[in-house]
Amino acid sequence: MAEPITFYFDFSSPYGYLAAHRIDPIARQHGRDVIWRPILLGAVFKLTGAKPLKDWPIKWDYVRREVARTARLHKIPFALPEPFPFAAVAASRAFYRLEENDGAQAKAFALATYGGAFAEGLDMSQPGNVARVATAVGADGAALLRDIEQPHWKDRLRAETDQAIARGVFGSPFFLVDGEPFWGAERLLELDSWLTSGGW
Amino acid sequence: MAEPITFYFDFSSPYGYLAAHRIDPIARQHGRDVIWRPILLGAVFKLTGAKPLKDWPIKWDYVRREVARTARLHKIPFALPEPFPFAAVAASRAFYRLEENDGAQAKAFALATYGGAFAEGLDMSQPGNVARVATAVGADGAALLRDIEQPHWKDRLRAETDQAIARGVFGSPFFLVDGEPFWGAERLLELDSWLTSGGW
Repeated sequence: MAEPITFYFDFSSPYGYLAAHRIDPIARQHGRDVIWRPILLGAVFKLTGAKPLKDWPIKWDYVRREVARTARLHKIPFALPEPFPFAAVAASRAFYRLEENDGAQAKAFALATYGGAFAEGLDMSQPGNVARVATAVGADGAALLRDIEQPHWKDRLRAETDQAIARGVFGSPFFLVDGEPFWGAERLLELDSWLTSGGW
Repeated sequence: MAEPITFYFDFSSPYGYLAAHRIDPIARQHGRDVIWRPILLGAVFKLTGAKPLKDWPIKWDYVRREVARTARLHKIPFALPEPFPFAAVAASRAFYRLEENDGAQAKAFALATYGGAFAEGLDMSQPGNVARVATAVGADGAALLRDIEQPHWKDRLRAETDQAIARGVFGSPFFLVDGEPFWGAERLLELDSWLTSGGW
């Protein structure tokens, strides 16, 4: 099987949410796996001087409309959560903890976390909601919340974010295909063509 | 004929350059005209707090690569001019002056200005280069340079930029289709689908 695609995202990113529904089916058509990598965009923004979508005047009005429009196109439910953006620290650490034992469960957890935030409007910065989502996909939510307080999982998330930055990631979603970077949910069609043609 | 599409762009925008080669053929397939509207993004960025592509650490490395890759995909010649970004004041005023008499000539001038910057690497902030490009598309370049020093054409560019901002434009390229906004060269496929389906 060809090299897997790496999918970087922040759980608080609406474009990451949209991409999370689409990347695995696209990759599968090309015989590729996808490695999911939640990161904290806040740490990235400190380096680049970028700011959350909501903090851009004029642009934010467009982005709200555009995300909802793209969700309609792909028939993905969408509603902006409150608060937005939210700190996805607990959910991101939990992802890596779950992935250690069961990659499929970790992806199911990630999709359910995104769904909690952007389909059900839950505040997924709350550890209680993270535990509930984890339990719903078959994990032990209470044990998970204890685990992610260990330095190991805090360090892991920090290391993954640092590695993303070292690889040139500056936004969400961000894909790496055989070293080729693609930024943004709206570049999935280009990524698909890239996989079909082997690049250009 | 249905309402024309409005295409806002800055002559210093590489994504605007890529879109300029693609928007009219797409619009024509749907029986639409395109109204081209050069603006000064610098004025927009003052309001939004955005900054030129080159001034974003990490992101700029990606953007350079991405623009070149998209140019290869669409077989559009591309090289980054020096200096970049450049102040497109003279070229933008000249566009509106030419359009007053001959819309087709103004579009030819805009494409040639973009080509001067992003295919030939000319410094299109220089009025001399603007005059040469204008002469090459059949206009009187010397007269044009005199005309655009008149307050009328300075005011016109300012008014067009202000109107763009009032319509929610915050970047380049930016398209308005029956009031629906599309931002970015990579959203032309979505814009095409929108025209085909009548929206979703």
